[in-house]
Amino acid sequence: MDIQTIAAQAKTAAIQMAALATATKNQALADIADALESRKEAIVAANRSDLQRSEQENLAAPLLKRLKFDEAKIAEACEGLRSMIRLPDPVGRTLGATELDEGLELYRVSCPIGVIGVIFESRPDALIQISCLGLKSGNAVLLKGGREASETNRMLADIICRAGVAAGIPEGWLGLLETRADVAEMLDLDQSIDLIIPRGSNAFVKHIMDNTSIPVMGHADGICHVYIDREADPDMAERIVVDSKTQYVAVCNAAETLLVHRDIADAFLPKVKAALEAKGVEIRGCERTTAIIDVKPAREVDWGTEYLDYVLAVRVVDGFEHAVDHINAHGSGHTDVIVSNNRARGLRFMNAVDSADVFLNCSSRFSDGFRFGLGAEVGISTNKTHARGPVGLEGLVIYQWRMIGTGQIVADYAGPTARRFTHRQLDKSFP
Amino acid sequence: MDIQTIAAQAKTAAIQMAALATATKNQALADIADALESRKEAIVAANRSDLQRSEQENLAAPLLKRLKFDEAKIAEACEGLRSMIRLPDPVGRTLGATELDEGLELYRVSCPIGVIGVIFESRPDALIQISCLGLKSGNAVLLKGGREASETNRMLADIICRAGVAAGIPEGWLGLLETRADVAEMLDLDQSIDLIIPRGSNAFVKHIMDNTSIPVMGHADGICHVYIDREADPDMAERIVVDSKTQYVAVCNAAETLLVHRDIADAFLPKVKAALEAKGVEIRGCERTTAIIDVKPAREVDWGTEYLDYVLAVRVVDGFEHAVDHINAHGSGHTDVIVSNNRARGLRFMNAVDSADVFLNCSSRFSDGFRFGLGAEVGISTNKTHARGPVGLEGLVIYQWRMIGTGQIVADYAGPTARRFTHRQLDKSFP
Repeated sequence: MDIQTIAAQAKTAAIQMAALATATKNQALADIADALESRKEAIVAANRSDLQRSEQENLAAPLLKRLKFDEAKIAEACEGLRSMIRLPDPVGRTLGATELDEGLELYRVSCPIGVIGVIFESRPDALIQISCLGLKSGNAVLLKGGREASETNRMLADIICRAGVAAGIPEGWLGLLETRADVAEMLDLDQSIDLIIPRGSNAFVKHIMDNTSIPVMGHADGICHVYIDREADPDMAERIVVDSKTQYVAVCNAAETLLVHRDIADAFLPKVKAALEAKGVEIRGCERTTAIIDVKPAREVDWGTEYLDYVLAVRVVDGFEHAVDHINAHGSGHTDVIVSNNRARGLRFMNAVDSADVFLNCSSRFSDGFRFGLGAEVGISTNKTHARGPVGLEGLVIYQWRMIGTGQIVADYAGPTARRFTHRQLDKSFP
Repeated sequence: MDIQTIAAQAKTAAIQMAALATATKNQALADIADALESRKEAIVAANRSDLQRSEQENLAAPLLKRLKFDEAKIAEACEGLRSMIRLPDPVGRTLGATELDEGLELYRVSCPIGVIGVIFESRPDALIQISCLGLKSGNAVLLKGGREASETNRMLADIICRAGVAAGIPEGWLGLLETRADVAEMLDLDQSIDLIIPRGSNAFVKHIMDNTSIPVMGHADGICHVYIDREADPDMAERIVVDSKTQYVAVCNAAETLLVHRDIADAFLPKVKAALEAKGVEIRGCERTTAIIDVKPAREVDWGTEYLDYVLAVRVVDGFEHAVDHINAHGSGHTDVIVSNNRARGLRFMNAVDSADVFLNCSSRFSDGFRFGLGAEVGISTNKTHARGPVGLEGLVIYQWRMIGTGQIVADYAGPTARRFTHRQLDKSFP
């Protein structure tokens, strides 16, 4: 089937999916989990084939590890699906109700977005999570996974799509794209696709944004900062810096730059250097930093680099404003942290830093849909519209304005004898 | 000043505007209204110059009327500003609060989007309304109005910008673009501009979408339908059709297509024809329509045309599903109406029709920010993300995740002795 047909079918399915009962969607999720478990041998076999081919193609070891999908990972993914069932249905919620006049009531009701195209890395569990987040939120999904996982993805998509349809989800609700040409074609289909979510490198997300008129929800680099205020507790600051940098270096919410108030730099820098070097972190410092501790010098480019590695740029700043200006100038609007015992300054930091996630006295690594309590996440958005930060089910819905009248016309509300609107907030749900 | 500089200044201003107190913003709005009134002679003089030039250039009479900005219109615009002061501040609202663990609290707090570029038609009151909606929602704005209104716009922007700055809004919060080249340049500035709102023709909005990677909130055509169900009250149906079509034909929420259930077509079509023709409406009917009433035949292209004029396409449909399929296939996702005494079917229509606004038993013309009780509106969105339908202050904000900890690190929540998240909903506001 060509991409245009797949997308058109998804659009038809999406319109029907908007009206699905919560129970139907949850039953489908349960059936999908059962189907994945009962077909686990076939899934593992398909994955083994992907692994063998990728080994022959000399795929790097960390990527091979990410590609591997064994029985334990299948069980974990199914556990995730079963906890998704327990999440509230994001669709059909009354977000507001207003009486415009007697017998004329306006409701704002959450509804699915429609058809969502997601392009993701070679991690088979991502396919399961994304397709099921789509289902739960009533959206049809077009998925393009990494080439390395192609056989695993084909097997998973087939099992998930069929189990969903058998449970009452409309045919065509899940479409699998296989090639880069498919993706290029998808980017042109603004008549049938409502949102594109690219996961991957910054350059890749930028490429998608530059090549489609469909709204894109993506994240740019995660250049996250930890700022150690003059009034920080040094032990807490050290623990937060070490965790933010090293708890998992290869992810977007890991810290890349440490900013230290000049008044505490002499005391704090040697202490944090020892702790970081014990974890194998290379420090690249500004001139004031290298005057205090013996580390490599940082260059201008370091302030804008997402290392995703055991490297940390360190800068001594003149104070709060300097730190905030540095973050707003060099950060990527992802997650930034202040460590301070001065609560008022901590709150001021949140108003002043223009990032999706702003934290006081905790690690940047908390920036994550699961940790935030959103259940699963479809990605982390550094957009300034629609959804920001970790995006769970709520980021996959929009709303519809629904008005119930009793024959009202606008002419009666115009001119010298115009009726007046009451605009009274109603405390009731859409019927 | 070049556009890049104007945009960079707006970005700097926007970051400061996020932290503005409600009282400061409301005072600025009051001062702007006062300044506009005290400078009304100068505004009218600038407008007169625009009118004279446009008359010489043979601008059409309806456009000249729209361009005209006299003392009465200034007074009306200032009245609008004063009612905007009474609207709640959309910024700083706690949208959610979750305890992740003891002493680790996450808040979702509404905040401005940042820098918004708005391109609008030659209606001077639009400049006032849009700039002040931006101010109230804490956003910096870059404005490009119609060329015909250039002198009026320059005068208004100058008065509004200065009055705002004098009241404590940061310099650079309002930038005026003057040429099409300015707009083209703005579309490239994805580092400093967060959202583009184009108002104008469908082709224009599409052009903007195709030429920027900045998120665009626009509306396509308003191809709005009224569907008369088998169980409709014929008198109510007639009134709603006449109002939806004729109350103001030149606007996007006017009806363009009437769908009539075949079981009532024989009785209803002659009745509605008489009422519409009395208002000067030309009817273009499908074959089944022309078999019942003597009207021009509709061609396929009529189902997808936004007439914005005294013309209405009419189609007899086999029933509910046929009507819904027609609307989803030919509509523009703006506003669609069902007239029916069968309430269950009316509610089913809302689930089945994929449009921003879906109405039961009232005119399509109610689709409007003021009528909805949103105060002013910046436009009507047919996007499926961020904001949909009439967009007021709420559509100009997004949110920030703010976490307050007491030294927590992620390492403590991983591994065999991991602490568990409590994920308890909190009923409190961000401090």
